[in-house]
Amino acid sequence: MTQNPEFAEKDLSRDAFLCGRLHLWQPIKGYRAATDPVLLAAACPAAAGQSVLDMGCGAGAAALCLAARVPGVRLAGLELQPAYAALARRNAAGNGIEMQVEEGDLAHMPRPLRREFDHVIANPPYYPAGGTPSPIAARARALQVDTPLGDWVQAAARRLAPGGWLTLICGADGLPAVLAAMGTKLGSASVLPLQPREGRAALRILLRARKGGKGAFRLLAPLVLHQGPAHDGDRESYTPAANAVLREGADLNAAFSGI
Amino acid sequence: MTQNPEFAEKDLSRDAFLCGRLHLWQPIKGYRAATDPVLLAAACPAAAGQSVLDMGCGAGAAALCLAARVPGVRLAGLELQPAYAALARRNAAGNGIEMQVEEGDLAHMPRPLRREFDHVIANPPYYPAGGTPSPIAARARALQVDTPLGDWVQAAARRLAPGGWLTLICGADGLPAVLAAMGTKLGSASVLPLQPREGRAALRILLRARKGGKGAFRLLAPLVLHQGPAHDGDRESYTPAANAVLREGADLNAAFSGI
Repeated sequence: MTQNPEFAEKDLSRDAFLCGRLHLWQPIKGYRAATDPVLLAAACPAAAGQSVLDMGCGAGAAALCLAARVPGVRLAGLELQPAYAALARRNAAGNGIEMQVEEGDLAHMPRPLRREFDHVIANPPYYPAGGTPSPIAARARALQVDTPLGDWVQAAARRLAPGGWLTLICGADGLPAVLAAMGTKLGSASVLPLQPREGRAALRILLRARKGGKGAFRLLAPLVLHQGPAHDGDRESYTPAANAVLREGADLNAAFSGI
Repeated sequence: MTQNPEFAEKDLSRDAFLCGRLHLWQPIKGYRAATDPVLLAAACPAAAGQSVLDMGCGAGAAALCLAARVPGVRLAGLELQPAYAALARRNAAGNGIEMQVEEGDLAHMPRPLRREFDHVIANPPYYPAGGTPSPIAARARALQVDTPLGDWVQAAARRLAPGGWLTLICGADGLPAVLAAMGTKLGSASVLPLQPREGRAALRILLRARKGGKGAFRLLAPLVLHQGPAHDGDRESYTPAANAVLREGADLNAAFSGI
């Protein structure tokens, strides 16, 4: 391993996101962005000109999906693993998007990121109980997943400007820890449950909370991701609502308005 | 007001619950049981022979609905207001159901209830922001609603036997306080969001948590109460799933199994 390790070209694939509006280099093995960063980007209420910190940005999927939907957002990313940070820089440049990417740990925020942001987005590493991580994922786990979810929330709260928004995607089982970590710094939280299918428990949740927010906690109607009662072979099975987000780059602002 | 105040007969109505399987005397003004206690009873996983404490039992609706579905449960109720406690005793007797009803405050549990129960059920008083309480409701509010939701959860935890279940219905905005109050005493919590209609945010939630439970928190698929996009005059508009619970006395065990 070199001092600034990068993935070898042969270990990378170039993948289309948002129907090809974005192309990202990702390691063939290890953490590969799928639907989570796209959903996270869709849930962030950033407007043009606002600053966004992607905490644990990996290869940049969430931040770059956000910029594809909201041109003019000012992106920064924090990433613990140098190889992923290098990929994020390459992916930003390759898609013609400006993004400041810093290497470091959220417990010791690098100095260049010690400023206030209008938005923080985060997709903390997550290994469902019983999963078998690959060797690379195991390494990521050793490095990152032991950082409790609450620490992610508190680090985000420190980086937010007053009135700024945290947008987070995590396992539904993490909701108690997330709410507990909000303390009095974050409020006006809304949770959008992500159900794999109609009638099934949510496996993931999207949460928005505001620095200094005083509004009541809200539990929104779920977003159902897949159609039908069970996985249907290799067939595309997203619901229209999920498809609008994952393929067409729609936002989730209506879902969060909590009609 | 007498030393043991009771409602005057002229101020009471006799109402049918569960399609007439149960009849309850209730004050015409003040707190009147509607759907919440019926949903609460449907969510409690009690079996015949098990003991159940209804904390804040009012006129007994939840406990008596439970006994109508699960004959042989051993019922006890705690009620702060003597007039409601008297109604609960009368309603139990009138439906041929045994129920021990004690007057008192959950912060100072009456001695006859200082034992362990297999189940605690609770429907804490709740006044949505902006509501205009009636004079009697205002009195109830002064007496009870200032007891924080977390105190209800902690009082319930004290009364549960190891492995016993708390079943609670409350406003969706109360979820953070409820989860925080569980601490390490209660775990294996599942939340069933109660949506007024498809696509709308949950206004109420049902929660089950187990004393000493170590299972992951689960966010279940919502129960949608009403059909259609808006209130349709005086027409009956419950969804089939809500109707099964509210009219036919079905339980919510399948919903909580979190398929």
